[in-house]
Amino acid sequence: MQGKNEKRKKKEEQMRYWTDLALETAENLKKNGITPGEDDGIIINKKQAGDKIKVTEINITNVTGEKILGKPCGKYITIEVENLTEAGEKEREQVAWIFAKELGKMVKHHYYFKALIAGLGNHKVTPDALGPETISKIQVTRHLFEIYECEGDEQYGNVAVIAPGVKGTTGLETLDILKSLVKLVKPEVVIVIDALAAGSIERVSTTIQLCDTGISPGAGMGNHRNPINAESLGVKVISIGVPTVIDTRNLLEEAFEKMNIEETERDKYFKERNFDMIVTTTDIDLLTEYFSSILAKGINITMHPGIYS
Amino acid sequence: MQGKNEKRKKKEEQMRYWTDLALETAENLKKNGITPGEDDGIIINKKQAGDKIKVTEINITNVTGEKILGKPCGKYITIEVENLTEAGEKEREQVAWIFAKELGKMVKHHYYFKALIAGLGNHKVTPDALGPETISKIQVTRHLFEIYECEGDEQYGNVAVIAPGVKGTTGLETLDILKSLVKLVKPEVVIVIDALAAGSIERVSTTIQLCDTGISPGAGMGNHRNPINAESLGVKVISIGVPTVIDTRNLLEEAFEKMNIEETERDKYFKERNFDMIVTTTDIDLLTEYFSSILAKGINITMHPGIYS
Amino acid sequence: MQGKNEKRKKKEEQMRYWTDLALETAENLKKNGITPGEDDGIIINKKQAGDKIKVTEINITNVTGEKILGKPCGKYITIEVENLTEAGEKEREQVAWIFAKELGKMVKHHYYFKALIAGLGNHKVTPDALGPETISKIQVTRHLFEIYECEGDEQYGNVAVIAPGVKGTTGLETLDILKSLVKLVKPEVVIVIDALAAGSIERVSTTIQLCDTGISPGAGMGNHRNPINAESLGVKVISIGVPTVIDTRNLLEEAFEKMNIEETERDKYFKERNFDMIVTTTDIDLLTEYFSSILAKGINITMHPGIYS
Amino acid sequence: MQGKNEKRKKKEEQMRYWTDLALETAENLKKNGITPGEDDGIIINKKQAGDKIKVTEINITNVTGEKILGKPCGKYITIEVENLTEAGEKEREQVAWIFAKELGKMVKHHYYFKALIAGLGNHKVTPDALGPETISKIQVTRHLFEIYECEGDEQYGNVAVIAPGVKGTTGLETLDILKSLVKLVKPEVVIVIDALAAGSIERVSTTIQLCDTGISPGAGMGNHRNPINAESLGVKVISIGVPTVIDTRNLLEEAFEKMNIEETERDKYFKERNFDMIVTTTDIDLLTEYFSSILAKGINITMHPGIYS
Repeated sequence: MQGKNEKRKKKEEQMRYWTDLALETAENLKKNGITPGEDDGIIINKKQAGDKIKVTEINITNVTGEKILGKPCGKYITIEVENLTEAGEKEREQVAWIFAKELGKMVKHHYYFKALIAGLGNHKVTPDALGPETISKIQVTRHLFEIYECEGDEQYGNVAVIAPGVKGTTGLETLDILKSLVKLVKPEVVIVIDALAAGSIERVSTTIQLCDTGISPGAGMGNHRNPINAESLGVKVISIGVPTVIDTRNLLEEAFEKMNIEETERDKYFKERNFDMIVTTTDIDLLTEYFSSILAKGINITMHPGIYS
Repeated sequence: MQGKNEKRKKKEEQMRYWTDLALETAENLKKNGITPGEDDGIIINKKQAGDKIKVTEINITNVTGEKILGKPCGKYITIEVENLTEAGEKEREQVAWIFAKELGKMVKHHYYFKALIAGLGNHKVTPDALGPETISKIQVTRHLFEIYECEGDEQYGNVAVIAPGVKGTTGLETLDILKSLVKLVKPEVVIVIDALAAGSIERVSTTIQLCDTGISPGAGMGNHRNPINAESLGVKVISIGVPTVIDTRNLLEEAFEKMNIEETERDKYFKERNFDMIVTTTDIDLLTEYFSSILAKGINITMHPGIYS
Repeated sequence: MQGKNEKRKKKEEQMRYWTDLALETAENLKKNGITPGEDDGIIINKKQAGDKIKVTEINITNVTGEKILGKPCGKYITIEVENLTEAGEKEREQVAWIFAKELGKMVKHHYYFKALIAGLGNHKVTPDALGPETISKIQVTRHLFEIYECEGDEQYGNVAVIAPGVKGTTGLETLDILKSLVKLVKPEVVIVIDALAAGSIERVSTTIQLCDTGISPGAGMGNHRNPINAESLGVKVISIGVPTVIDTRNLLEEAFEKMNIEETERDKYFKERNFDMIVTTTDIDLLTEYFSSILAKGINITMHPGIYS
Repeated sequence: MQGKNEKRKKKEEQMRYWTDLALETAENLKKNGITPGEDDGIIINKKQAGDKIKVTEINITNVTGEKILGKPCGKYITIEVENLTEAGEKEREQVAWIFAKELGKMVKHHYYFKALIAGLGNHKVTPDALGPETISKIQVTRHLFEIYECEGDEQYGNVAVIAPGVKGTTGLETLDILKSLVKLVKPEVVIVIDALAAGSIERVSTTIQLCDTGISPGAGMGNHRNPINAESLGVKVISIGVPTVIDTRNLLEEAFEKMNIEETERDKYFKERNFDMIVTTTDIDLLTEYFSSILAKGINITMHPGIYS
């Protein structure tokens, strides 16, 4: 029994760190000596997909799993690359294909395939520009299908994109905009791309996460609201994210833990201050360029098999 | 009778030049010796609004007027500034206030005032970036009204903005996006900002047009489709435009006319080629910066009287 | 004697926090109960320059002062505005004029006035774009003086600008580029504009610093190297900075101090990790837009008195 | 004899069209029935380099050739791709390798290889942003050679880049900036990248030109001044250009020729007006993205053979 309590306490401990990455949460559990299994509603499979590229699939299958990992039931694919900025172009190319393969398992091209792809975030703030930058590189075809009065195609999907902006600069809730556009476009899948927040700075520049459980826009910037998912949009939602920032609180929590600061003291510290901050890396411009190219290429491969055949 | 035919022919002649500016069409008529009057459904009033600033109001009141000027019935305000790029900041400030005054006549702040403002165009192409640049400088408040659960304000309007992108890069018709957002926001007025096409290059850098008859997105880039207006949106529409390009055809037509080339020859020439081109000035970046600041300031003054009181 | 040691220790204490702002260092001293005076080579004058605008002048007059404040001898002007993002345009206008007045005391327009203005930083990373953004709004005249073969002017200064980029993306040391351009342009003053690092996040969005002691490019991003100053350039150097980031270390040091962590423990913590990070605010895009406009306007007023007369 | 005069007249005729492309001038000659040969100091070699890719090498070997083609003696390589915007990524990849091969003939990596690469143009105006966009994607190493105190490398060249801006916005002559930087960097080759002006709109989106005779900055925008070449810089200069605009005059001259307008009439027409205009295509943003990636990749392959080995 004591073990259970210990476990729960440790779990709570690690939940203090915010991360959008299911993998990071799982790894934090492991660090704390907890290895959740199928009974806990958590199935983890790791494989080496390339020389320096690892793919981890986490399935959260029940409410226990949801609670332990702090994420909704569903599939979370994480692609990890050893230091992407120092990787050459060939390696980035390889990452794009591996990403396309994983995306292709979640959403498949077929004759009447129709997708709406949303690039969330503020294109004027570098660490938040990943979504808009990615969609600017995606091959858009919806208007061509209309011009040629054609409903489906073997080689090309029917793809529309939107950069809805962020609530702070538009006054509009992203979820509301997407709901409206789903009614208009009637896609079979909505793909949402956003910058994420990781728990540690090392994640920024190394990780891509795909999941079928949706996203909370602006989570990477500290906001957690109005989730965009199958339930709220009424259509399949795949979300793709790359951590470009870390939560300021994490930086501090990690330090506090190292220093063995008591929880109550920490909580007091956090309560007294407002963290309207972004913590990112100094080479975030290059990373955004690299990852937006990788994501766009992977999406183009998946949406339009004709391009690369 | 012959006079009438002459007149019609001259009108047709000048219609060969494409311009988004009602004022330019009217001036072309005048050059051709035609001065339309109230009977023709056209009322023109000119006034000097500042040392180097002129304001012209054109009212098209019936179908005859519509045909003559090639624009729908309604009010067209044109603000002309002598060479804005060489004007100092004080003069640009003055233009913003004059623009705000004219906009204020068309749309007035009041307690429950609610507006949706759309910046049309492609923010990645300098001469098409006016709309997105302008809205990035507008004070957005809709989300604040929501947070404070407040419906109206004496000093501030409820303002949301959107940059819907262009069909060629999103696959989505701008009109369709705006229709969806009108349903969502339920504004009493939609203000649409777009780069326009003028008939002559001198217009680029000198002119702002306001009208209450809507706009065809991308007209500045050579597309004329799916007009955004009160009829299509079901709500009052004010459109604000600044010419940033001229139609390539105009450049040639003007030259052909000077050279007395026959119409049939001209038509043949145009039929044989495709003009997927933009003609703009070399200082378009500076102009876009100046005009987006002027428009944003004028709109902020009109929407939020509290800012400047 | 003990007091002296205490004082030194406290000084060392506060030096653990990095800040580019002389004012912040002085305020930290004060918090620690130290008020340096003329004997310490530090003269501080504060005045209220507007309703919500304060101007502080710090003169460091000798080596003791240099050691205490950790900055070279010279004049440091700090303009503080209460929350600029919530300030209206009128207030920002007022800040520009107050800034121009202070800049005008350091560098004056006269008949043969010639300036080279450098906007340091990476225009592709929002919190580092302040320098390049500012110079893009400065009125440049050097080429016009050449075209009109004119050497001086009562109303306009001879102004050239450069955005040298950052070493990491150009491979070139900023100081070396500026040395070369000083030889070419032969200005009487070099004005350098850069994003700064503050000690606390509250400073970001509220402060402008002018000084006559130069700058270390990239200090705002954690690099302190090859100072650009009168000695290294052989010509008067005025540097203008706005804090847009804080040093990650500061964030942690502040927390550690609150938690009463021992210095040795802290040092150990910092030694073990690499902080290649940027900490900035979520509204950094708006702040950069506002501050670059304020700085450019103030510089235009000072360089070209003819514009506003 | 008469033939010679005819020939000269035809040559003069075609020189009325401005183009930065040697190939286009040669093709215009051909259209007029003139095929210059070795005696005329012009040697032309065409080859098919890929399915849809042609490479033409033009060598101008004497003063006669210079006069006929209106370009200085030297080598001009032109790579032509059938409609690049509709080409897939694989084809763009192929173009990058073909470009690298041609560049590699002009400038070769070796142990102490040192290059300075300048991206000319204004990054804020889409059709003029090619140079700055390209250098932002080039792998820069000069500072790393300094850090590791290493003089040469088998796999990597010593590369520095600069975006000097344009005279109109900096007040500085590009040639003067480059002269200063050549003294500083002491490279064995300067590579200059710039947007070019073509004679016909079809060229925009299909052509890359490399030459060893330098460039006149801003020629693509209508300025022809202070050439950057081996003579003015005192070091080998390779210039790389992609046409992104056409000269407005060309558009009109082509039309006038079709209409058989007399030369004197044309000249009168041009004398009366000022053409401070840019003519470009509507998809110039995509083209700039594609071509800057192709050029950067080709340059990276040539400068740093280690990346792709």
